[in-house]
Amino acid sequence: MELKFNEKGLIPVIAQDVRTGEVRMFAWANQEAIEKTLQTGYAHYFSRSRNKVWKKGETSGELQKVLEVRVDCDEDALLYIVHQEKDKACHTGERNCFFRDKEGKHVNRILPFEVLARLQDVIRERIETLPEGSYTAKLYKEGPDRVFQKFGEEAVELLIALKNSDKERVVSECADLLYSLIFSLTVWGVDIEEVLWELSKRFK
Amino acid sequence: MELKFNEKGLIPVIAQDVRTGEVRMFAWANQEAIEKTLQTGYAHYFSRSRNKVWKKGETSGELQKVLEVRVDCDEDALLYIVHQEKDKACHTGERNCFFRDKEGKHVNRILPFEVLARLQDVIRERIETLPEGSYTAKLYKEGPDRVFQKFGEEAVELLIALKNSDKERVVSECADLLYSLIFSLTVWGVDIEEVLWELSKRFK
Repeated sequence: MELKFNEKGLIPVIAQDVRTGEVRMFAWANQEAIEKTLQTGYAHYFSRSRNKVWKKGETSGELQKVLEVRVDCDEDALLYIVHQEKDKACHTGERNCFFRDKEGKHVNRILPFEVLARLQDVIRERIETLPEGSYTAKLYKEGPDRVFQKFGEEAVELLIALKNSDKERVVSECADLLYSLIFSLTVWGVDIEEVLWELSKRFK
Repeated sequence: MELKFNEKGLIPVIAQDVRTGEVRMFAWANQEAIEKTLQTGYAHYFSRSRNKVWKKGETSGELQKVLEVRVDCDEDALLYIVHQEKDKACHTGERNCFFRDKEGKHVNRILPFEVLARLQDVIRERIETLPEGSYTAKLYKEGPDRVFQKFGEEAVELLIALKNSDKERVVSECADLLYSLIFSLTVWGVDIEEVLWELSKRFK
C-alpha cells in the first residue's frame, strides 16, 4: 500500500484495544515508526514534541502488542489493533486518553462493546481483594459450585422471561445471566476474549 | 475545554460505533464542524479537499448520530461515539474505512469486542432471507420454542463443561451458549446493545 504521509512525513494512528474495543490513544507515526512496529510487533510512534520515534511503554511498561495494522480507504490513516499491557495507556494514569467529555468532565459511562471485558476485570478484582459487602466476593467464598449454580438459576430465569411477554424482563434477566456467565468463566480462568475469538472463528 | 487546533484550524476526529465498537472512520473537524455536531446531534467534519464543513451522510443517508464527544488528554484529538445509520460508513460501500491490512488485503477477522453485535446482524439477516442450508433459518422456521429450547440445552451443556476439567470445552460451550442467547434475543426483538447498556448501568 502507498501510505500518504503529510507534509511533515507523518500519518495519524489510532490504537484500539482488541479485548475491550476502547480507543486507547491517538498519535502519529512516520515511516520509521511503522517499520519498527512491524518488525518488533510493538507499537512505535513519532513524537512531534521530542522530534523522534518512540516505543510506547518503553519506560512505563505500558507496551502495546500489535496484532494488526489496518489502513483506511484514503491510505492516510492507520489503525493499530493492540493488546494493551498493564491495561493502561495514558500518561495521566487513565486507561485511555479519551477520558473527558467536551466540558472536561470525566466520562464514566462504559459503552456496550466494552462491557463484558470490563465486567470481567471488576469480577477478577473482587475475587482478588474480597471486599466487605461485595456480592461477588461473598458468592466466590462459598465455592465454585455456588457460582455455577447461580449461572444455572439465571439461565432458568431467562427461559421463563423468554416465555412471558415482558421485554424489560428479558433484558434484565439476560444481563443477570451474562454476569453469572462471566463470573463462571473467571472462576475457570477463562478470559471472555477467548470465547469471543472462538465465536469469531465460526463466522467464516 | 481549550481544544488545540493545528495550524490549519483543524483537529483529528475518530468516529467509533457505540454498538459494535468499530472505528468507523477518521476525519478532521474545525470549530464550526464541532459546533454543528453539538447543535444538531449529527457528525459534521471539515473536508480538506472541498475546503468546507460537511454533514456525514447528508446525501448517502449514512448519518452518524453522536451520543458523546470525548476529548483526549492533550486536547488535540476528538472521539465521536456514534450510532451509524445504515450500518455503513465508508464511501467505498464498506462498513468502515479500515477494511484493509498493510498489504492491501481485505481484513475479514471479526474482533472480540464486535462479535456479539455482528453475530446478531447475521442472525437477523438469516431470519429475513431464510437461505437454504442455514442452521439458523432451519431452527427459526421450527418456531420460537425451539430457539428457546436450544438456549436451555446449551446452558445445561455449559454447566456440565464447567463441572468437568477441560478448558477448551468450556470455551466452546460458552460460544454455543452465546449464539443461542443472541438468537433468542433476536426472536424477541431485543438488540444485544440494550442488554449491554443494562449491564453497564449496574457498574455504577
